[in-house]
Amino acid sequence: MAQSELAIDATAAAGDIEAFIADAACKAGFERVILGLSGGLDSATVCGLCARALKPERVIAVNMPYRATSPESVADAQRAAAWAGAEMLTVEITPQVDAYFARFPDADARRRGNKMARERMAVLYDLSAAREALVVGASNKTEWLLGYFTLWGDMAAGIWPLATLYKTQVRQLAAHLGVPEAIRGKPPSAELWEGQTDEEELGIRYEEVDRLLYHLVDRGESRAHLVRHGFAGDLVERVAALVERTGFKRRLPLTIDVVGEEEEDFI
Amino acid sequence: MAQSELAIDATAAAGDIEAFIADAACKAGFERVILGLSGGLDSATVCGLCARALKPERVIAVNMPYRATSPESVADAQRAAAWAGAEMLTVEITPQVDAYFARFPDADARRRGNKMARERMAVLYDLSAAREALVVGASNKTEWLLGYFTLWGDMAAGIWPLATLYKTQVRQLAAHLGVPEAIRGKPPSAELWEGQTDEEELGIRYEEVDRLLYHLVDRGESRAHLVRHGFAGDLVERVAALVERTGFKRRLPLTIDVVGEEEEDFI
Repeated sequence: MAQSELAIDATAAAGDIEAFIADAACKAGFERVILGLSGGLDSATVCGLCARALKPERVIAVNMPYRATSPESVADAQRAAAWAGAEMLTVEITPQVDAYFARFPDADARRRGNKMARERMAVLYDLSAAREALVVGASNKTEWLLGYFTLWGDMAAGIWPLATLYKTQVRQLAAHLGVPEAIRGKPPSAELWEGQTDEEELGIRYEEVDRLLYHLVDRGESRAHLVRHGFAGDLVERVAALVERTGFKRRLPLTIDVVGEEEEDFI
Repeated sequence: MAQSELAIDATAAAGDIEAFIADAACKAGFERVILGLSGGLDSATVCGLCARALKPERVIAVNMPYRATSPESVADAQRAAAWAGAEMLTVEITPQVDAYFARFPDADARRRGNKMARERMAVLYDLSAAREALVVGASNKTEWLLGYFTLWGDMAAGIWPLATLYKTQVRQLAAHLGVPEAIRGKPPSAELWEGQTDEEELGIRYEEVDRLLYHLVDRGESRAHLVRHGFAGDLVERVAALVERTGFKRRLPLTIDVVGEEEEDFI
């Protein structure tokens, strides 16, 4: 199972995604798009794609630091906005978040991180109304399948240009687009708390989990097959369980039919 | 087209919904459920159904008033919690919401109302984590089809027990359950601003729009057919356009396939 099976044609992918963004904005009746810009790889990549799809001046990038957010992240966000040519706004979420947790001072880091992710969503949607702009999300396929996101938080958007790309594929696209090296070189972090890195928290390297997810989900191969072909058994079990356990984060709320009509998809 | 076509067997519906709630909580691994309780009809009805489905002491009802919320609404929420036997918590959202809008003092009532709905969602999810409880939503079919809700706000939940019932059917169920008359008798309001009522804002009475939606959506009848059978032409056009225009609120973010795999549903 060569690494190359996750190799993408970055030129073609960039072109397709740019057409998708332009088309979605047009259909939704918006001249502008708006996105959260953390200083990380995914949002910088989305910002660059939006600037190429529309014009840079039609892209609003919103940096929403909390007081614990590192100055390096804020600097990387500025670097990404400057690189893409996008307008950058900074909206601190500290006053709202601290006002809430003043009431729940014992809340742990996970509760705080999730509340912040939802606050960023709410700020982004509020500004999208004020500026009449389509909200663009930065979710990638790896975090989507692993449920590694805040429900109704960072996953909330109108469109997801990167959602069919695994993290390692986003890296290829970012290199092709010329996302600044400072951003591409640092360890991925959801910045839910200080010093957090995705790979440490998940306990898996992206290179490995992306390959595993590709075989498990895209190719539908059995767990036994994966183990026979070189994946560690405990890792296969753990990732498969994570995908299964987080299914509730990948759907709209469940409902029930009680009035005797045919069950139907919501239109 | 008689009103009776929207008549439900309230006993059967209550039984089915209670089984659905108990089953969903069990499958999700939760002993408790948590819901927002505004003092309105829908959330009071959901609260009562949850108390019957589990035990009242396993139901956490959270009232989240803003400083402009009327004392009558808070009193109705208390009345509903007492009637259902649920535990009631009160979490004011004023400090967080005001902290945010201090920065955007010119924001209009709609921006403020939507920010509040999203703040209530974030509070509810935070408390659901702290209390290990499944979030239960109160969305009904009328508001879902009309897009009459805040995206990633009041629609965000784990389950929607009422989502296949039109508002007028929720009223029948509420009467059957014995929801207090003070709550059943008042005009429906999302309370996005003071004095707001749903029917005034929508410009349509629920009795009328529910019948229209039933024929348009459930039965799939053409607009011309509806007009021939007594619905006002301008109303039909307006409601059909509203359903169509708000489709983006009823789905997960759009994405695109760029890596050559078969297009697939997110699992």
